[in-house]
Amino acid sequence: MERIARDIDHAFDLLLAIPDDPRRRLYEAMRYAAIGGGKRLRPLLVCASCDLYAVDGPAALRVATAIECIHVYSLVHDDLPAMDDDDLRRGKPTVHRAFDEAAAILAGDALHALAFEVLADPATHADPFVRSELCLELARAAGPSGMAGGQMMDLAACAAPMDLATITRLQQLKTGALFGFCLESGAIMGRVPPEGRTHLRGYARNIGLAFQIIDDLIDVEGSAEAAGKAVGKDAAAGKATFVSHLGVERAREQARLLVDQAIEHLTDHGAEADLLRAIAGYIIDRDR
Amino acid sequence: MERIARDIDHAFDLLLAIPDDPRRRLYEAMRYAAIGGGKRLRPLLVCASCDLYAVDGPAALRVATAIECIHVYSLVHDDLPAMDDDDLRRGKPTVHRAFDEAAAILAGDALHALAFEVLADPATHADPFVRSELCLELARAAGPSGMAGGQMMDLAACAAPMDLATITRLQQLKTGALFGFCLESGAIMGRVPPEGRTHLRGYARNIGLAFQIIDDLIDVEGSAEAAGKAVGKDAAAGKATFVSHLGVERAREQARLLVDQAIEHLTDHGAEADLLRAIAGYIIDRDR
Repeated sequence: MERIARDIDHAFDLLLAIPDDPRRRLYEAMRYAAIGGGKRLRPLLVCASCDLYAVDGPAALRVATAIECIHVYSLVHDDLPAMDDDDLRRGKPTVHRAFDEAAAILAGDALHALAFEVLADPATHADPFVRSELCLELARAAGPSGMAGGQMMDLAACAAPMDLATITRLQQLKTGALFGFCLESGAIMGRVPPEGRTHLRGYARNIGLAFQIIDDLIDVEGSAEAAGKAVGKDAAAGKATFVSHLGVERAREQARLLVDQAIEHLTDHGAEADLLRAIAGYIIDRDR
Repeated sequence: MERIARDIDHAFDLLLAIPDDPRRRLYEAMRYAAIGGGKRLRPLLVCASCDLYAVDGPAALRVATAIECIHVYSLVHDDLPAMDDDDLRRGKPTVHRAFDEAAAILAGDALHALAFEVLADPATHADPFVRSELCLELARAAGPSGMAGGQMMDLAACAAPMDLATITRLQQLKTGALFGFCLESGAIMGRVPPEGRTHLRGYARNIGLAFQIIDDLIDVEGSAEAAGKAVGKDAAAGKATFVSHLGVERAREQARLLVDQAIEHLTDHGAEADLLRAIAGYIIDRDR
Protein backbone atom coordinates (compact mmCIF):
# COMPACT_ATOMS: atom_id res chain seq x y z
CA MET A 1 0.00 0.00 0.00
CA GLU A 2 2.91 2.33 0.70
CA ARG A 3 4.41 1.65 -2.71
CA ILE A 4 1.20 2.26 -4.62
CA ALA A 5 0.59 5.44 -2.58
CA ARG A 6 4.05 6.68 -3.55
CA ASP A 7 3.52 5.75 -7.22
CA ILE A 8 0.13 7.51 -7.36
CA ASP A 9 1.55 10.65 -5.72
CA HIS A 10 4.37 10.63 -8.27
CA ALA A 11 1.94 10.17 -11.19
CA PHE A 12 -0.19 13.12 -10.01
CA ASP A 13 2.93 15.21 -9.51
CA LEU A 14 3.87 14.70 -13.18
CA LEU A 15 0.31 15.10 -14.52
CA LEU A 16 -0.36 18.27 -12.56
CA ALA A 17 2.71 20.40 -13.20
CA ILE A 18 1.65 23.94 -12.25
CA PRO A 19 1.42 26.25 -15.28
CA ASP A 20 2.76 29.79 -15.11
CA ASP A 21 -0.55 31.56 -15.80
CA PRO A 22 -3.84 32.29 -13.96
CA ARG A 23 -4.75 28.58 -14.09
CA ARG A 24 -2.16 28.11 -11.33
CA ARG A 25 -4.82 28.14 -8.60
CA LEU A 26 -6.79 25.36 -10.34
CA TYR A 27 -3.73 23.11 -10.49
CA GLU A 28 -2.86 23.94 -6.87
CA ALA A 29 -6.36 22.91 -5.76
CA MET A 30 -6.15 19.71 -7.85
CA ARG A 31 -2.75 18.85 -6.35
CA TYR A 32 -3.99 19.62 -2.84
CA ALA A 33 -6.91 17.22 -3.36
CA ALA A 34 -5.02 14.48 -5.17
CA ILE A 35 -1.53 14.28 -3.69
CA GLY A 36 -0.76 12.84 -0.23
CA GLY A 37 -3.12 10.99 2.04
CA GLY A 38 -5.86 8.56 1.21
CA LYS A 39 -5.71 4.79 1.39
CA ARG A 40 -5.36 4.48 -2.41
CA LEU A 41 -7.53 1.39 -2.12
CA ARG A 42 -8.96 1.70 -5.64
CA PRO A 43 -5.52 1.98 -7.27
CA LEU A 44 -4.47 -1.06 -5.24
CA LEU A 45 -7.51 -2.98 -6.53
CA VAL A 46 -6.57 -2.05 -10.10
CA CYS A 47 -3.03 -3.36 -9.57
CA ALA A 48 -4.35 -6.54 -7.93
CA SER A 49 -6.69 -7.09 -10.87
CA CYS A 50 -3.79 -6.53 -13.26
CA ASP A 51 -1.80 -9.20 -11.33
CA LEU A 52 -4.42 -11.77 -12.37
CA TYR A 53 -3.82 -11.22 -16.07
CA ALA A 54 -0.12 -10.30 -16.08
CA VAL A 55 -0.84 -6.74 -17.25
CA ASP A 56 2.34 -4.67 -17.18
CA GLY A 57 3.03 -2.22 -14.37
CA PRO A 58 2.99 1.13 -16.25
CA ALA A 59 -0.44 0.38 -17.80
CA ALA A 60 -1.80 -0.65 -14.40
CA LEU A 61 -0.48 2.55 -12.82
CA ARG A 62 -2.12 4.78 -15.45
CA VAL A 63 -5.51 3.13 -14.98
CA ALA A 64 -5.00 3.29 -11.21
CA THR A 65 -4.31 7.03 -11.52
CA ALA A 66 -7.44 7.54 -13.63
CA ILE A 67 -9.70 5.80 -11.13
CA GLU A 68 -8.14 7.81 -8.30
CA CYS A 69 -8.92 11.01 -10.27
CA ILE A 70 -12.59 9.99 -10.26
CA HIS A 71 -12.52 9.02 -6.58
CA VAL A 72 -10.82 12.25 -5.52
CA TYR A 73 -13.16 14.42 -7.61
CA SER A 74 -16.16 12.70 -5.98
CA LEU A 75 -14.75 13.37 -2.49
CA VAL A 76 -14.10 17.05 -3.30
CA HIS A 77 -17.67 17.56 -4.56
CA ASP A 78 -19.17 15.39 -1.79
CA ASP A 79 -17.52 17.56 0.86
CA LEU A 80 -19.02 20.82 -0.50
CA PRO A 81 -21.35 22.81 1.80
CA ALA A 82 -24.35 22.00 -0.43
CA MET A 83 -23.56 18.27 -0.17
CA ASP A 84 -22.11 16.72 3.03
CA ASP A 85 -20.57 20.01 4.23
CA ASP A 86 -17.35 18.49 5.61
CA ASP A 87 -14.38 20.46 6.94
CA LEU A 88 -11.91 17.60 7.26
CA ARG A 89 -10.75 15.01 4.74
CA ARG A 90 -7.70 12.77 4.84
CA GLY A 91 -6.65 14.57 7.99
CA LYS A 92 -6.56 18.07 6.51
CA PRO A 93 -9.05 20.83 5.63
CA THR A 94 -11.29 19.98 2.69
CA VAL A 95 -10.56 21.72 -0.65
CA HIS A 96 -13.34 24.32 -0.32
CA ARG A 97 -11.98 25.15 3.16
CA ALA A 98 -8.34 25.40 2.06
CA PHE A 99 -9.23 27.26 -1.18
CA ASP A 100 -12.85 28.24 -1.81
CA GLU A 101 -16.03 26.68 -3.15
CA ALA A 102 -15.50 27.75 -6.75
CA ALA A 103 -11.99 26.28 -6.78
CA ALA A 104 -13.34 23.05 -5.26
CA ILE A 105 -16.08 22.73 -7.90
CA LEU A 106 -13.62 23.40 -10.74
CA ALA A 107 -10.86 21.20 -9.32
CA GLY A 108 -13.37 18.34 -9.09
CA ASP A 109 -14.56 18.94 -12.65
CA ALA A 110 -11.00 19.11 -13.94
CA LEU A 111 -10.01 15.86 -12.18
CA HIS A 112 -13.11 14.23 -13.68
CA ALA A 113 -12.03 15.12 -17.23
CA LEU A 114 -8.40 14.23 -16.45
CA ALA A 115 -9.44 10.64 -15.67
CA PHE A 116 -10.60 10.17 -19.26
CA GLU A 117 -7.63 12.06 -20.66
CA VAL A 118 -5.35 9.55 -18.91
CA LEU A 119 -7.37 6.47 -19.96
CA ALA A 120 -7.80 7.41 -23.62
CA ASP A 121 -4.13 8.26 -24.11
CA PRO A 122 -2.17 5.74 -26.21
CA ALA A 123 0.42 5.75 -23.41
CA THR A 124 -2.05 3.78 -21.27
CA HIS A 125 -2.49 0.87 -23.68
CA ALA A 126 -1.45 0.26 -27.28
CA ASP A 127 -4.79 -1.33 -28.25
CA PRO A 128 -7.45 1.33 -28.99
CA PHE A 129 -10.21 -1.20 -28.27
CA VAL A 130 -8.88 -1.57 -24.73
CA ARG A 131 -8.69 2.22 -24.30
CA SER A 132 -12.23 2.77 -25.50
CA GLU A 133 -13.59 -0.06 -23.35
CA LEU A 134 -11.81 1.39 -20.29
CA CYS A 135 -13.41 4.80 -21.03
CA LEU A 136 -16.86 3.25 -21.50
CA GLU A 137 -16.75 1.20 -18.30
CA LEU A 138 -15.37 4.05 -16.20
CA ALA A 139 -17.98 6.47 -17.54
CA ARG A 140 -20.74 3.97 -16.73
CA ALA A 141 -19.36 3.42 -13.23
CA ALA A 142 -19.09 7.16 -12.52
CA GLY A 143 -22.27 8.40 -14.20
CA PRO A 144 -25.99 8.53 -13.39
CA SER A 145 -26.39 4.74 -13.48
CA GLY A 146 -23.37 4.38 -11.16
CA MET A 147 -21.65 6.59 -8.58
CA ALA A 148 -23.53 9.83 -9.31
CA GLY A 149 -26.84 7.94 -9.08
CA GLY A 150 -25.77 6.44 -5.75
CA GLN A 151 -24.85 9.85 -4.40
CA MET A 152 -28.30 11.18 -5.23
CA MET A 153 -29.84 8.19 -3.43
CA ASP A 154 -27.57 8.98 -0.49
CA LEU A 155 -28.90 12.55 -0.33
CA ALA A 156 -32.44 11.15 -0.39
CA ALA A 157 -31.55 8.73 2.46
CA CYS A 158 -31.69 11.51 5.05
CA ALA A 159 -35.11 12.70 3.85
CA ALA A 160 -36.82 9.28 3.88
CA PRO A 161 -35.25 6.39 5.86
CA MET A 162 -34.47 3.43 3.62
CA ASP A 163 -34.83 -0.29 4.16
CA LEU A 164 -31.85 -2.64 4.00
CA ALA A 165 -32.47 -3.62 0.36
CA THR A 166 -32.49 0.03 -0.72
CA ILE A 167 -29.32 0.79 1.27
CA THR A 168 -27.63 -2.19 -0.38
CA ARG A 169 -28.65 -0.92 -3.83
CA LEU A 170 -27.49 2.61 -2.92
CA GLN A 171 -24.06 1.39 -1.83
CA GLN A 172 -23.70 -0.88 -4.85
CA LEU A 173 -24.07 2.25 -6.98
CA LYS A 174 -22.22 4.76 -4.79
CA THR A 175 -19.07 2.75 -4.06
CA GLY A 176 -19.68 -0.64 -5.72
CA ALA A 177 -19.70 0.60 -9.31
CA LEU A 178 -16.18 2.06 -9.08
CA PHE A 179 -14.94 -1.05 -7.23
CA GLY A 180 -16.39 -3.07 -10.11
CA PHE A 181 -14.43 -0.98 -12.61
CA CYS A 182 -11.21 -1.48 -10.62
CA LEU A 183 -11.66 -5.25 -10.68
CA GLU A 184 -12.63 -5.42 -14.33
CA SER A 185 -9.85 -3.11 -15.51
CA GLY A 186 -7.18 -5.83 -15.36
CA ALA A 187 -9.46 -8.19 -17.29
CA ILE A 188 -10.16 -5.51 -19.92
CA MET A 189 -6.43 -4.97 -20.42
CA GLY A 190 -5.91 -8.75 -20.39
CA ARG A 191 -8.59 -8.96 -23.12
CA VAL A 192 -10.87 -11.21 -21.06
CA PRO A 193 -14.43 -10.89 -22.47
CA PRO A 194 -17.27 -9.73 -20.16
CA GLU A 195 -18.56 -13.30 -19.64
CA GLY A 196 -15.17 -14.24 -18.14
CA ARG A 197 -15.38 -11.48 -15.52
CA THR A 198 -18.36 -12.72 -13.47
CA HIS A 199 -16.17 -13.74 -10.51
CA LEU A 200 -14.48 -10.31 -10.52
CA ARG A 201 -17.83 -8.54 -10.37
CA GLY A 202 -18.86 -10.89 -7.56
CA TYR A 203 -15.66 -10.15 -5.60
CA ALA A 204 -16.12 -6.41 -6.17
CA ARG A 205 -19.76 -6.48 -5.04
CA ASN A 206 -18.88 -8.36 -1.84
CA ILE A 207 -15.89 -6.28 -0.80
CA GLY A 208 -17.74 -3.09 -1.77
CA LEU A 209 -20.53 -3.85 0.67
CA ALA A 210 -18.08 -5.02 3.35
CA PHE A 211 -16.11 -1.80 2.85
CA GLN A 212 -19.26 0.27 3.35
CA ILE A 213 -20.30 -1.63 6.49
CA ILE A 214 -16.86 -1.00 8.00
CA ASP A 215 -17.20 2.66 6.97
CA ASP A 216 -20.49 2.81 8.86
CA LEU A 217 -18.83 1.15 11.87
CA ILE A 218 -15.95 3.65 11.79
CA ASP A 219 -18.55 6.44 11.77
CA VAL A 220 -20.11 4.91 14.92
CA GLU A 221 -17.06 3.63 16.80
CA GLY A 222 -14.00 5.34 15.31
CA SER A 223 -12.12 8.51 16.17
CA ALA A 224 -11.89 11.49 13.81
CA GLU A 225 -8.12 11.43 14.31
CA ALA A 226 -7.69 7.88 13.02
CA ALA A 227 -10.34 8.28 10.31
CA GLY A 228 -8.98 11.63 9.09
CA LYS A 229 -12.54 12.89 8.75
CA ALA A 230 -15.51 13.71 10.97
CA VAL A 231 -17.28 10.73 12.58
CA GLY A 232 -20.74 10.30 14.14
CA LYS A 233 -22.30 12.02 11.13
CA ASP A 234 -24.80 9.35 10.10
CA ALA A 235 -26.46 9.14 13.52
CA ALA A 236 -26.51 12.94 13.82
CA ALA A 237 -28.25 13.14 10.44
CA GLY A 238 -30.66 10.35 11.38
CA LYS A 239 -29.46 8.42 8.35
CA ALA A 240 -30.36 4.76 7.94
CA THR A 241 -27.19 2.66 7.47
CA PHE A 242 -26.21 -1.01 7.65
CA VAL A 243 -25.27 -0.43 11.29
CA SER A 244 -28.49 1.39 12.25
CA HIS A 245 -30.42 -1.56 10.79
CA LEU A 246 -28.29 -4.49 12.00
CA GLY A 247 -26.57 -3.16 15.10
CA VAL A 248 -22.79 -3.14 15.58
CA GLU A 249 -22.28 -6.85 16.20
CA ARG A 250 -24.40 -8.24 13.39
CA ALA A 251 -23.02 -5.61 10.98
CA ARG A 252 -19.43 -6.70 11.69
CA GLU A 253 -20.49 -10.34 11.29
CA GLN A 254 -22.10 -9.50 7.95
CA ALA A 255 -18.93 -7.75 6.76
CA ARG A 256 -16.88 -10.82 7.69
CA LEU A 257 -19.29 -13.05 5.75
CA LEU A 258 -19.06 -10.79 2.69
CA VAL A 259 -15.27 -10.88 2.78
CA ASP A 260 -15.32 -14.69 2.98
CA GLN A 261 -17.66 -14.76 -0.01
CA ALA A 262 -15.38 -12.35 -1.88
CA ILE A 263 -12.44 -14.71 -1.40
CA GLU A 264 -14.59 -17.65 -2.56
CA HIS A 265 -14.95 -15.94 -5.94
CA LEU A 266 -11.18 -16.31 -6.42
CA THR A 267 -10.99 -20.12 -6.11
CA ASP A 268 -10.12 -20.62 -9.78
CA HIS A 269 -7.06 -18.40 -9.33
CA GLY A 270 -3.77 -19.38 -7.71
CA ALA A 271 -1.03 -17.22 -6.21
CA GLU A 272 -1.71 -14.44 -8.75
CA ALA A 273 -4.85 -13.62 -6.68
CA ASP A 274 -3.01 -13.38 -3.35
CA LEU A 275 -3.07 -9.57 -3.40
CA LEU A 276 -6.85 -9.60 -3.88
CA ARG A 277 -7.16 -12.04 -0.96
CA ALA A 278 -4.98 -9.81 1.21
CA ILE A 279 -7.03 -6.73 0.30
CA ALA A 280 -10.22 -8.50 1.34
CA GLY A 281 -8.64 -9.16 4.74
CA TYR A 282 -7.42 -5.55 5.04
CA ILE A 283 -10.87 -4.16 4.35
CA ILE A 284 -12.32 -5.81 7.44
CA ASP A 285 -9.43 -4.88 9.75
CA ARG A 286 -8.93 -1.25 8.78
CA ASP A 287 -9.60 1.61 11.19
CA ARG A 288 -9.73 4.39 8.60
CA MET B 1 -30.84 24.81 -36.20
CA GLU B 2 -34.41 23.77 -35.45
CA ARG B 3 -33.82 20.27 -36.72
CA ILE B 4 -30.63 19.75 -34.71
CA ALA B 5 -32.35 21.17 -31.61
CA ARG B 6 -35.18 18.66 -32.05
CA ASP B 7 -32.72 15.78 -32.63
CA ILE B 8 -30.68 16.67 -29.54
CA ASP B 9 -33.81 16.93 -27.38
CA HIS B 10 -34.90 13.52 -28.66
CA ALA B 11 -31.46 12.00 -27.96
CA PHE B 12 -31.49 13.31 -24.38
CA ASP B 13 -35.05 12.07 -23.92
CA LEU B 14 -33.92 8.52 -24.79
CA LEU B 15 -30.65 8.68 -22.83
CA LEU B 16 -32.28 10.08 -19.69
CA ALA B 17 -35.30 7.82 -19.17
CA ILE B 18 -36.32 8.40 -15.55
CA PRO B 19 -35.69 5.32 -13.35
CA ASP B 20 -38.26 4.23 -10.79
CA ASP B 21 -36.04 4.58 -7.73
CA PRO B 22 -34.54 7.40 -5.61
CA ARG B 23 -32.27 8.40 -8.49
CA ARG B 24 -35.38 9.90 -10.09
CA ARG B 25 -34.51 13.39 -8.90
CA LEU B 26 -31.05 13.23 -10.47
CA TYR B 27 -32.50 12.31 -13.85
CA GLU B 28 -35.15 15.01 -13.53
CA ALA B 29 -32.47 17.62 -12.88
CA MET B 30 -30.39 16.33 -15.82
CA ARG B 31 -33.42 16.46 -18.13
CA TYR B 32 -34.34 19.94 -16.89
CA ALA B 33 -30.82 21.15 -17.71
CA ALA B 34 -30.39 19.31 -21.00
CA ILE B 35 -33.76 19.26 -22.77
CA GLY B 36 -35.36 22.32 -24.39
CA GLY B 37 -33.74 25.66 -25.00
CA GLY B 38 -30.20 26.52 -25.93
CA LYS B 39 -28.88 27.39 -29.34
CA ARG B 40 -27.31 23.93 -29.79
CA LEU B 41 -24.47 25.69 -31.55
CA ARG B 42 -21.87 23.07 -30.61
CA PRO B 43 -23.98 20.15 -31.92
CA LEU B 44 -24.50 22.15 -35.11
CA LEU B 45 -20.73 22.62 -35.45
CA VAL B 46 -20.23 18.86 -35.03
CA CYS B 47 -22.76 18.18 -37.80
CA ALA B 48 -21.17 20.80 -40.05
CA SER B 49 -17.75 19.24 -39.46
CA CYS B 50 -19.21 15.81 -40.29
CA ASP B 51 -20.57 17.27 -43.55
CA LEU B 52 -16.99 17.91 -44.66
CA TYR B 53 -16.01 14.27 -44.44
CA ALA B 54 -19.33 12.57 -45.27
CA VAL B 55 -19.67 11.11 -41.76
CA ASP B 56 -23.06 9.45 -41.36
CA GLY B 57 -25.88 11.19 -39.48
CA PRO B 58 -26.35 8.87 -36.47
CA ALA B 59 -22.62 9.01 -35.60
CA ALA B 60 -22.65 12.81 -35.91
CA LEU B 61 -25.71 13.05 -33.65
CA ARG B 62 -24.12 10.91 -30.92
CA VAL B 63 -20.96 13.04 -30.87
CA ALA B 64 -23.14 16.17 -30.96
CA THR B 65 -25.06 14.87 -27.93
CA ALA B 66 -21.83 14.13 -26.07
CA ILE B 67 -20.45 17.64 -26.61
CA GLU B 68 -23.78 19.13 -25.52
CA CYS B 69 -23.58 17.03 -22.32
CA ILE B 70 -20.25 18.74 -21.58
CA HIS B 71 -21.56 22.20 -22.48
CA VAL B 72 -24.71 21.80 -20.36
CA TYR B 73 -22.79 20.45 -17.36
CA SER B 74 -20.45 23.46 -17.57
CA LEU B 75 -23.41 25.87 -17.59
CA VAL B 76 -25.04 24.14 -14.61
CA HIS B 77 -21.85 24.36 -12.54
CA ASP B 78 -21.04 27.88 -13.80
CA ASP B 79 -24.42 29.13 -12.62
CA LEU B 80 -23.92 27.86 -9.04
CA PRO B 81 -23.92 30.46 -6.23
CA ALA B 82 -20.21 29.85 -5.57
CA MET B 83 -19.45 30.51 -9.27
CA ASP B 84 -21.42 33.09 -11.30
CA ASP B 85 -24.52 32.88 -9.06
CA ASP B 86 -27.07 33.11 -11.88
CA ASP B 87 -30.83 32.69 -11.47
CA LEU B 88 -31.79 32.57 -15.13
CA ARG B 89 -30.53 30.36 -17.96
CA ARG B 90 -32.07 29.67 -21.34
CA GLY B 91 -35.08 31.69 -20.21
CA LYS B 92 -35.91 29.60 -17.14
CA PRO B 93 -34.65 29.30 -13.56
CA THR B 94 -31.18 27.75 -13.27
CA VAL B 95 -30.96 24.14 -12.04
CA HIS B 96 -29.93 25.03 -8.48
CA ARG B 97 -32.94 27.40 -8.36
CA ALA B 98 -35.44 24.90 -9.78
CA PHE B 99 -34.01 22.00 -7.71
CA ASP B 100 -31.25 22.70 -5.19
CA GLU B 101 -27.49 23.12 -5.16
CA ALA B 102 -26.71 19.48 -4.43
CA ALA B 103 -28.89 18.33 -7.33
CA ALA B 104 -27.19 20.88 -9.61
CA ILE B 105 -23.69 19.70 -8.64
CA LEU B 106 -24.63 16.04 -9.14
CA ALA B 107 -26.59 16.63 -12.36
CA GLY B 108 -23.53 18.43 -13.78
CA ASP B 109 -21.22 15.61 -12.69
CA ALA B 110 -23.54 12.98 -14.15
CA LEU B 111 -23.79 14.81 -17.51
CA HIS B 112 -20.00 15.06 -17.55
CA ALA B 113 -19.62 11.27 -17.22
CA LEU B 114 -22.49 10.68 -19.66
CA ALA B 115 -20.57 12.51 -22.39
CA PHE B 116 -17.82 9.88 -22.28
CA GLU B 117 -20.31 7.04 -21.92
CA VAL B 118 -21.91 8.19 -25.19
CA LEU B 119 -18.59 8.69 -27.03
CA ALA B 120 -16.96 5.41 -25.97
CA ASP B 121 -20.02 3.32 -26.88
CA PRO B 122 -19.60 1.15 -30.00
CA ALA B 123 -22.94 2.60 -31.17
CA THR B 124 -21.13 5.90 -31.82
CA HIS B 125 -18.53 4.50 -34.20
CA ALA B 126 -17.48 1.00 -35.19
CA ASP B 127 -13.75 1.81 -35.11
CA PRO B 128 -12.36 1.68 -31.54
CA PHE B 129 -9.47 3.95 -32.55
CA VAL B 130 -11.99 6.65 -33.49
CA ARG B 131 -13.85 6.19 -30.21
CA SER B 132 -10.72 6.44 -28.11
CA GLU B 133 -9.47 9.49 -30.03
CA LEU B 134 -12.84 11.20 -29.54
CA CYS B 135 -12.62 10.51 -25.79
CA LEU B 136 -9.05 11.78 -25.62
CA GLU B 137 -9.74 15.00 -27.50
CA LEU B 138 -12.95 15.77 -25.59
CA ALA B 139 -11.23 15.13 -22.25
CA ARG B 140 -8.40 17.47 -23.22
CA ALA B 141 -10.86 20.14 -24.36
CA ALA B 142 -12.91 19.92 -21.15
CA GLY B 143 -10.12 19.45 -18.60
CA PRO B 144 -7.58 21.65 -16.80
CA SER B 145 -5.68 22.50 -20.00
CA GLY B 146 -8.99 23.43 -21.71
CA MET B 147 -12.41 24.59 -20.51
CA ALA B 148 -11.89 24.04 -16.77
CA GLY B 149 -8.61 25.96 -16.96
CA GLY B 150 -10.36 28.81 -18.79
CA GLN B 151 -13.08 28.96 -16.16
CA MET B 152 -10.50 29.33 -13.42
CA MET B 153 -8.88 32.17 -15.40
CA ASP B 154 -12.34 33.73 -15.72
CA LEU B 155 -12.79 33.69 -11.94
CA ALA B 156 -9.38 35.34 -11.58
CA ALA B 157 -10.40 38.01 -14.14
CA CYS B 158 -12.59 39.81 -11.60
CA ALA B 159 -9.81 39.87 -9.01
CA ALA B 160 -7.08 41.27 -11.28
CA PRO B 161 -8.05 42.99 -14.58
CA MET B 162 -6.46 41.29 -17.57
CA ASP B 163 -4.90 42.65 -20.73
CA LEU B 164 -6.26 41.78 -24.16
CA ALA B 165 -3.72 38.99 -24.76
CA THR B 166 -4.68 37.28 -21.50
CA ILE B 167 -8.41 37.62 -22.24
CA THR B 168 -7.80 36.06 -25.66
CA ARG B 169 -5.96 33.16 -24.06
CA LEU B 170 -8.71 32.80 -21.44
CA GLN B 171 -11.44 32.62 -24.08
CA GLN B 172 -9.46 30.23 -26.25
CA LEU B 173 -9.45 27.86 -23.29
CA LYS B 174 -12.92 28.57 -21.90
CA THR B 175 -14.95 28.35 -25.11
CA GLY B 176 -12.36 27.79 -27.86
CA ALA B 177 -11.21 24.36 -26.72
CA LEU B 178 -14.70 22.85 -27.03
CA PHE B 179 -15.28 24.62 -30.36
CA GLY B 180 -12.01 23.04 -31.50
CA PHE B 181 -13.27 19.60 -30.50
CA CYS B 182 -16.52 20.16 -32.41
CA LEU B 183 -14.63 21.05 -35.57
CA GLU B 184 -12.13 18.22 -35.27
CA SER B 185 -14.75 15.58 -34.46
CA GLY B 186 -15.84 15.17 -38.09
CA ALA B 187 -12.21 14.86 -39.16
CA ILE B 188 -11.53 12.26 -36.46
CA MET B 189 -14.50 10.19 -37.66
CA GLY B 190 -13.39 10.75 -41.25
CA ARG B 191 -9.95 9.44 -40.21
CA VAL B 192 -8.16 12.65 -41.20
CA PRO B 193 -4.82 12.77 -39.33
CA PRO B 194 -4.08 15.75 -37.01
CA GLU B 195 -1.85 17.45 -39.60
CA GLY B 196 -4.83 17.62 -41.98
CA ARG B 197 -6.97 19.49 -39.45
CA THR B 198 -5.03 22.77 -39.21
CA HIS B 199 -7.69 24.72 -41.12
CA LEU B 200 -10.41 23.34 -38.82
CA ARG B 201 -8.54 24.47 -35.73
CA GLY B 202 -8.04 27.87 -37.38
CA TYR B 203 -11.76 28.19 -38.17
CA ALA B 204 -12.64 27.10 -34.61
CA ARG B 205 -10.25 29.61 -33.03
CA ASN B 206 -11.63 32.47 -35.11
CA ILE B 207 -15.33 31.79 -34.62
CA GLY B 208 -14.69 31.01 -30.94
CA LEU B 209 -13.28 34.48 -30.35
CA ALA B 210 -15.97 36.12 -32.52
CA PHE B 211 -18.60 34.22 -30.54
CA GLN B 212 -17.16 35.52 -27.27
CA ILE B 213 -17.00 39.12 -28.50
CA ILE B 214 -20.66 38.95 -29.49
CA ASP B 215 -21.40 37.42 -26.07
CA ASP B 216 -19.71 40.40 -24.45
CA LEU B 217 -21.72 42.76 -26.69
CA ILE B 218 -24.99 41.02 -25.75
CA ASP B 219 -24.02 41.48 -22.10
CA VAL B 220 -23.59 45.23 -22.76
CA GLU B 221 -26.36 45.93 -25.28
CA GLY B 222 -28.80 43.02 -25.13
CA SER B 223 -31.97 42.40 -23.14
CA ALA B 224 -32.28 39.61 -20.58
CA GLU B 225 -35.49 38.53 -22.34
CA ALA B 226 -33.82 37.94 -25.70
CA ALA B 227 -30.64 36.51 -24.15
CA GLY B 228 -32.52 34.17 -21.79
CA LYS B 229 -30.06 35.06 -19.05
CA ALA B 230 -29.02 38.06 -16.97
CA VAL B 231 -27.15 40.82 -18.84
CA GLY B 232 -24.90 43.67 -17.66
CA LYS B 233 -23.02 41.29 -15.42
CA ASP B 234 -19.47 41.92 -16.67
CA ALA B 235 -19.63 45.67 -16.11
CA ALA B 236 -21.26 45.21 -12.70
CA ALA B 237 -18.43 42.84 -11.73
CA GLY B 238 -15.81 45.24 -13.13
CA LYS B 239 -14.59 42.44 -15.38
CA ALA B 240 -12.23 43.18 -18.25
CA THR B 241 -13.69 41.92 -21.56
CA PHE B 242 -13.06 42.41 -25.27
CA VAL B 243 -15.69 45.16 -25.18
CA SER B 244 -14.29 46.96 -22.12
CA HIS B 245 -10.90 47.03 -23.87
CA LEU B 246 -11.97 47.83 -27.44
CA GLY B 247 -15.28 49.63 -27.03
CA VAL B 248 -18.51 48.53 -28.73
CA GLU B 249 -17.69 49.64 -32.27
CA ARG B 250 -14.17 48.25 -32.55
CA ALA B 251 -15.24 45.04 -30.82
CA ARG B 252 -17.97 44.45 -33.42
CA GLU B 253 -15.49 45.23 -36.20
CA GLN B 254 -13.03 42.76 -34.72
CA ALA B 255 -15.72 40.05 -34.57
CA ARG B 256 -16.53 40.67 -38.25
CA LEU B 257 -12.85 40.36 -39.14
CA LEU B 258 -12.56 37.09 -37.22
CA VAL B 259 -15.58 35.66 -39.01
CA ASP B 260 -14.09 36.63 -42.39
CA GLN B 261 -10.86 34.91 -41.39
CA ALA B 262 -12.77 31.84 -40.27
CA ILE B 263 -14.39 31.55 -43.69
CA GLU B 264 -10.96 31.98 -45.34
CA HIS B 265 -9.84 28.75 -43.65
CA LEU B 266 -12.47 26.88 -45.69
CA THR B 267 -11.20 27.85 -49.18
CA ASP B 268 -10.05 24.31 -49.99
CA HIS B 269 -13.60 23.04 -49.38
CA GLY B 270 -16.55 23.35 -51.74
CA ALA B 271 -20.27 23.15 -51.06
CA GLU B 272 -19.71 20.60 -48.28
CA ALA B 273 -18.47 23.55 -46.13
CA ASP B 274 -21.54 25.71 -46.76
CA LEU B 275 -23.02 24.93 -43.34
CA LEU B 276 -19.77 26.04 -41.66
CA ARG B 277 -19.87 29.26 -43.69
CA ALA B 278 -23.48 29.87 -42.69
CA ILE B 279 -22.68 29.26 -39.02
CA ALA B 280 -19.89 31.85 -39.16
CA GLY B 281 -22.44 34.36 -40.45
CA TYR B 282 -24.98 33.41 -37.81
CA ILE B 283 -22.49 33.90 -35.00
CA ILE B 284 -22.08 37.59 -35.82
CA ASP B 285 -25.79 38.30 -36.30
CA ARG B 286 -27.22 36.47 -33.28
CA ASP B 287 -28.93 38.30 -30.42
CA ARG B 288 -28.79 35.46 -27.89
